[in-house]
Amino acid sequence: MHIEQSAIAQWLSHAAAAARAASDELAHMPVAQRNEGLHEAAAELRAQSDVIVAANAVDIEAFDAAGGTAAFRDRLLLTPARVEAMAVGLEEIAELPDPLERTLSEWTRPNGLVIRRVAQPLGVIGMIYESRPNVGADAAGICLKSGNAVILRGGSDSIFSARAIHAAFTEGLRRAGIPETMVQIPPATDRAFVAAMLAASGMIDLIIPRGGRTLVERVQAEARVPVLAHAEGLCHTYIHTAADPEMARQVLTNGKMRRTGVCGATETLLIDSDIAPGLLPLLINDLAKLGCEFRADVGARAIVSSLPAAKDADFDTEWLAPMLSVAVVDDVDAALDHIARHGSSHTEAIVTEDAEIAARFLNRSTSAVTMWNASTQFCDGGEFGFGAEIGIATGRVHARGPVGVEQLTTYRYQVIGTGQVRP
Amino acid sequence: MHIEQSAIAQWLSHAAAAARAASDELAHMPVAQRNEGLHEAAAELRAQSDVIVAANAVDIEAFDAAGGTAAFRDRLLLTPARVEAMAVGLEEIAELPDPLERTLSEWTRPNGLVIRRVAQPLGVIGMIYESRPNVGADAAGICLKSGNAVILRGGSDSIFSARAIHAAFTEGLRRAGIPETMVQIPPATDRAFVAAMLAASGMIDLIIPRGGRTLVERVQAEARVPVLAHAEGLCHTYIHTAADPEMARQVLTNGKMRRTGVCGATETLLIDSDIAPGLLPLLINDLAKLGCEFRADVGARAIVSSLPAAKDADFDTEWLAPMLSVAVVDDVDAALDHIARHGSSHTEAIVTEDAEIAARFLNRSTSAVTMWNASTQFCDGGEFGFGAEIGIATGRVHARGPVGVEQLTTYRYQVIGTGQVRP
Repeated sequence: MHIEQSAIAQWLSHAAAAARAASDELAHMPVAQRNEGLHEAAAELRAQSDVIVAANAVDIEAFDAAGGTAAFRDRLLLTPARVEAMAVGLEEIAELPDPLERTLSEWTRPNGLVIRRVAQPLGVIGMIYESRPNVGADAAGICLKSGNAVILRGGSDSIFSARAIHAAFTEGLRRAGIPETMVQIPPATDRAFVAAMLAASGMIDLIIPRGGRTLVERVQAEARVPVLAHAEGLCHTYIHTAADPEMARQVLTNGKMRRTGVCGATETLLIDSDIAPGLLPLLINDLAKLGCEFRADVGARAIVSSLPAAKDADFDTEWLAPMLSVAVVDDVDAALDHIARHGSSHTEAIVTEDAEIAARFLNRSTSAVTMWNASTQFCDGGEFGFGAEIGIATGRVHARGPVGVEQLTTYRYQVIGTGQVRP
Repeated sequence: MHIEQSAIAQWLSHAAAAARAASDELAHMPVAQRNEGLHEAAAELRAQSDVIVAANAVDIEAFDAAGGTAAFRDRLLLTPARVEAMAVGLEEIAELPDPLERTLSEWTRPNGLVIRRVAQPLGVIGMIYESRPNVGADAAGICLKSGNAVILRGGSDSIFSARAIHAAFTEGLRRAGIPETMVQIPPATDRAFVAAMLAASGMIDLIIPRGGRTLVERVQAEARVPVLAHAEGLCHTYIHTAADPEMARQVLTNGKMRRTGVCGATETLLIDSDIAPGLLPLLINDLAKLGCEFRADVGARAIVSSLPAAKDADFDTEWLAPMLSVAVVDDVDAALDHIARHGSSHTEAIVTEDAEIAARFLNRSTSAVTMWNASTQFCDGGEFGFGAEIGIATGRVHARGPVGVEQLTTYRYQVIGTGQVRP
C-alpha cells in the first residue's frame, strides 16, 4: 500500500498535536482516573477477546500464506490466554505507585526561594515495534500510567491484531473519560510512517524501538528524535579466581540457559586463568548437558580441547541461542578490558567471594547493569521491582537499564517566591 | 581553510576514543584529584594570562579587520580581569559537591538482591559554541568535575583564544595527573568538524550547543547524537487579578529589564483583564522609564492607547532587547493557553496572592521552570544553587532547566546478590 508523502506528514502532524493535548491533560489527571482507564481497558480487552483473536487469525493467515519461521509465527499468535495476559498486565500497571505526583527534591535558597523538582510526563512517545501484538497493549498501559501519549507503529504483519487491540484500549479510555488520542496507530502500514516518526522532532519527544537489532539500529541511525533502546544485549559472566565454584556453576547456567533468546542472556563466559583448569570443565559439562554449544579461545581450548575454536567475531556476537563464547583472562582488569572492547553496555556479572575485586568490577564496569553473584537474566523491569517495562536502554542519556513507568517521566522546576527579584 | 573529509573523520574518531578512555578513567578518579585538576588549571590560566590575552588580541585584530558589531566584539574580548574570572570560576567548581560518588537510590528485592542506582559520567560531551572564549574554560571545568571528557568546538573567530585557553587548561590537567585528552579542540576551524561531531553517534554521547538561535536550531535539526539545549527563551510573566500590585511591578521590571539579553528575560507580559485598567499603566510607566518599548494587543491598547500595536508574530519573538509584548487575558487558563501556543518551554512566572491559582499555574505549565512571585531571571544554575551551569535545557529528555555538574551525570545499576538465579 502506498500513501502520498504529504498525507503521511499531515496525519502525523494532526496525530502528534492530538497526542500532545492528551498528554497535557494526563499530566494533571488524578492517578485514580488513569488507573480507571487501565482497568477499563483491561475489561475491554477481555470483553473483545474473541474479536481480537479473530483479527489475529487474519494476520496469521497472511503470515502462513507468505511463509515464515515457527518462532516468528509464535510471536505473532494471539490466543484467549494471551489476551487475558495482556489484560492482567494492564491491571498490574494500575497497581504500581504513581510516577507523576512526586516531588523529586526540594530546597530553599538563601534568598528564600523554594525550588522544587517535580515529576512530569515526557509527553509524546513514538513506539516502533515488530511482530508481537501484545507490545502495543503493554506500551499503551505504561504510557497511560506515566501520563504520556503514544503513537504505536507495529509491524505490518500484525496490523489487524494491532487495530483490534487499539479499538478495545480506546474504548476503555472513553469509559474512563480519558482522551482516546492518548493512543493512536497510523491509518496504514506504509513504512514511510516510520521515517516520518523518526523525523518528527518537536512533535514526538522520544522514540522507543522494540525488536531485532536491524530495526533498532535503523531507528538509532535515522532518528532526529531522542531514542531509548538497546540494539543488543551482549552480556558477560566473569568467574573470578575467588568464586564459589558451586555458585559460579549455577549463576552461569542460569545466565546462559534459563532463556537463551532474551537480551539479558549471557553470551560470553570470561574465567580467570587460575581457576579455569579445575572449574571450566565443570561449567562446560553443565551447559553441554542442557544443549549448549561453545566457541572458545586458545586458553579455554588448552583446558578443554574438544571445544570448537572461536573466531574473533564470535566475541562480538549476541547469540540469542544455546551458544556460548568462552575466553580465559588473567584477572579482573583483563575481564573489564574484554567487556569494554566487546560488550554492548547492557548487563555484566561477576562471580567472586572477594568483596574488593567485586567492588572494582562494579565500579569500573560502565554497563547499564552490573551484577555481583547473580544471574545476568535478572536485568528485567519486573525483577527490579518496576512492574512492567517498555524496554531496556543502553544509551547514556535519560534512562538506563529497565525502562518502566518512572523512566518515562522527566521533571520540571517549580520556584516559589515572595516577590524576590534578582540583584 | 579546507580539510579533507576523511582527515576530519579520522581526527574525530581518534579524539573520541581518547576522550572515552579519559572519561572512563575520570569516572572512578577520586574527587580530590578532579578538584586538583581544577585548581591547577585555574593556576595555569592565571600564570598564562598574558599569553591568553595576547592570543585573544590576534582574534580581535581579525575581527576588527572583518568588521562586526560592538556587542560581538565585547563577547570575544579577553582582558586580564576576564581571565581571572575564568580561573575563579574553575575554583568555584572545585568547591561544589561531587556529583559522581552518589548512590541515587538503593532497595532490596524479596529474593535478597540489593539494587543500587549510582551516578556515572555521561562520557564524551561535544560542546559547540560561538564567540565567548570563556565558555571553553567553563565547560571544560564542569565536565572535569562531572567526570566527562569534552570536545570543544568554539567559533572560528575565537580560535587563537580557544587554543591558548586549551593549552593552559591541559597543562593544569597534566600537573594533576589527569589525561590531557579530557579536553580536546579540533586542529582547524573547518565547519565540517561541526557536521562530523553532530553525526558522531556512539562516539559522542551528548552535544551541547551554546549560542544564538540559528546555531542551536541547526544543531537540533542535524544532530544524530542527543542534544541538550534551548533554542530560545520566550519567557512570560503573568500578572493575575489577585497580584500584589507593588510585587507585580518589581517582579516584572526585574524579569524584563535586569538584563534584556539573557534567555531568562521576560519577553511577554500577560495581565488579567480585571486588574489591567488600574495596574497596566503603572507597569508600562515603570518599564518605559528604563527605556523599554512595547508591542501590545487590542486589550492592552484599549487601556494604554499610546502603545504600538503588536503583530501576531511579536508574541512568538524572543526580543533579547528592551522590548515587551503585552497581552490582556481573561484568567489563568487563558494565560496558560497563550503560553502553550507561543512559549518555548523555558521559564514562566505568575504573580498572585491566590495560592489556588498559583498551584493551577505551577501544575499546568509544562515549561522547564515555573516561578510563583519571583522574577523569570532567576532561571540560572547559580541562582538554583548548582554553581556553574553549562547551559539551560528546554527539551523533554534527560535534564531540564539549568544544566550543572549533576545534570551531566547519568546512572547505572549495581546489583548485589548471594548467588541468586532467576526462576
